[in-house]
Amino acid sequence: MASRERRRHAPRIAVIGATGAAGSTVLRILEERHFPIGELRALASVRSAGMTVGFGGAPVTVAEVTDDSLRGIDIAFFAAGSAAARRFAPVVAAGGGVAVDKSSAYRADPEVPLVVPEVNAETLRSHQGIVANPNCVTIPLTVCVAPLHRAFGLRRLTVATYQSASGGGRDLVAELRAQEQADADGRQPLASVYPHVLHANVVPGGWAMQGDDTDEELKVIAETRRVLQLADLPVSITTVRVPVAVGHSAAVWGEFDVDVDAAAARRVLGDSPGVRVVDDPAAQRYPTPRDAAGSDDVLVGRIRADRGRPGAVAFFLAADNLRKGAATNAVQVGELLLALRGATAAA
Amino acid sequence: MASRERRRHAPRIAVIGATGAAGSTVLRILEERHFPIGELRALASVRSAGMTVGFGGAPVTVAEVTDDSLRGIDIAFFAAGSAAARRFAPVVAAGGGVAVDKSSAYRADPEVPLVVPEVNAETLRSHQGIVANPNCVTIPLTVCVAPLHRAFGLRRLTVATYQSASGGGRDLVAELRAQEQADADGRQPLASVYPHVLHANVVPGGWAMQGDDTDEELKVIAETRRVLQLADLPVSITTVRVPVAVGHSAAVWGEFDVDVDAAAARRVLGDSPGVRVVDDPAAQRYPTPRDAAGSDDVLVGRIRADRGRPGAVAFFLAADNLRKGAATNAVQVGELLLALRGATAAA
Repeated sequence: MASRERRRHAPRIAVIGATGAAGSTVLRILEERHFPIGELRALASVRSAGMTVGFGGAPVTVAEVTDDSLRGIDIAFFAAGSAAARRFAPVVAAGGGVAVDKSSAYRADPEVPLVVPEVNAETLRSHQGIVANPNCVTIPLTVCVAPLHRAFGLRRLTVATYQSASGGGRDLVAELRAQEQADADGRQPLASVYPHVLHANVVPGGWAMQGDDTDEELKVIAETRRVLQLADLPVSITTVRVPVAVGHSAAVWGEFDVDVDAAAARRVLGDSPGVRVVDDPAAQRYPTPRDAAGSDDVLVGRIRADRGRPGAVAFFLAADNLRKGAATNAVQVGELLLALRGATAAA
Repeated sequence: MASRERRRHAPRIAVIGATGAAGSTVLRILEERHFPIGELRALASVRSAGMTVGFGGAPVTVAEVTDDSLRGIDIAFFAAGSAAARRFAPVVAAGGGVAVDKSSAYRADPEVPLVVPEVNAETLRSHQGIVANPNCVTIPLTVCVAPLHRAFGLRRLTVATYQSASGGGRDLVAELRAQEQADADGRQPLASVYPHVLHANVVPGGWAMQGDDTDEELKVIAETRRVLQLADLPVSITTVRVPVAVGHSAAVWGEFDVDVDAAAARRVLGDSPGVRVVDDPAAQRYPTPRDAAGSDDVLVGRIRADRGRPGAVAFFLAADNLRKGAATNAVQVGELLLALRGATAAA
């Protein structure tokens, strides 16, 4: 069979949305991690077709994503919106490849695994050609919370986020930058991409609403429950945008089946993959988005007893939302897929 | 007696720390609220003596704060640090006047009332010449939480803060501004006032530590308990600095003796003094520090059921930390003192 034949070769890779912020980060991380690539196709909407993106020091011409341009692809990284994923991920799957999607299109689909490699890699085995990535808050949150859950049994989460402009897309980053420049020049900063001026501000909104909750809040609740396999986990969350280009942060409180002290939580987090403990506040060492930007680790610190809930734990995390919050997670899923393929081929 | 004689005249007012951010805001608010003033003395450390500050369209020469310069003062607004308050507030009290202090010097002193006029004005009657103001997070927090407590019985608070640079003093505001300018000019932003670059960052620290908690966290816990007269109230809090010049915000979750729905909480907050409900997130209306700056109200919105705790309520607040978080609260205390004095004189 054609698909088996293909498996003997270095994989054919597609990046959909290759010209966007998320897609270009996927390309960079594929390079950095020396992802084995037999053929690379940079794909995007017809609007971006003909542009070039850099990969391995050479320009790659962007082609339009179509049924044809996806033919023979082994792993397709979807770094585009939900509409593109809904339209083309099934094409990749039908062709015997696997679509790894960063959009929210398939995150609630029970037939599609929702994967954070450090947390629930085992769920990947059940994939049927499509794998979903959680959103950029859920990924770092579950990377930190899953090992604590394994050790102590998670009962409840409370989360306040400090989310960067890049989570809202490249246009919001450009708007924030223009607002900074306007303020520096003594001009009035303008807002058009976002409902409020983000520069020198804190915005507890900008997402679509579902009743009294933001879409983002409901996504984090549903996805965290799915990734942790805790269908009824109580999660209290307020999502807030801050004037930072890259790097999402969160203040987190966790309640557990047993009383947990700060030292035990710090020990567990210190031994957890994907986590870097930065926790010496007296020396002013704690996670910040400036330090997280460019890193594939989730930084965690301010680990301490929750003063208001005996036995519970508080901490603060920061992660690069374009990397571990999106592209790095997808490429890690790709690496797991190759390992699975190798295991199948060897069997 | 001299002190009684004085009471028949328009009060003699002193502002200590008149050249600082907090002190100049006190002067502005005394003007705005047409505070009755027989004589105004602008006082500061010897370093600032001889400078002038504006009041009522005229320059006022700043004098050094000394025992002598405080003689005969009826109300002294202390907008300086703890050391100045410890040294000179007792001088004012001994002279028959009242010191209204914004520092933390007397906040834990059981003989000194800690007053938020909308919350516990009645405690002012017991003053013995010194009145303390809570810190700039506690004031807006208790303005919102006290009416909810009265209606529903508060059981627990969880708070994540988004605090502005001006809470760290004028130098931090200037440093943030210089960092913005550096970034706009393509230069490396520098940090010296603060342990981290605050521009385009989120900093969960910068305060002195007491064990695993920041001073700021412990202050908010202790002062909130005192103002609400709930000595054992469980409070979970993470304090965080954000790149905003003026305006503190907070994500808050409250648990109560009875189940509270969003509509009931919104109704109570809508009827509460000092609170302005800004809560139509679908129309992108919610509190932001940009909107709170310059206002004496605490803005509150995102009022909703806490998804993780049935019967509990979540909300988001923003307030001008230099005004209601400091100077406005002090001037309101001054107004109450005058009313008390009037009541005493009439009796």
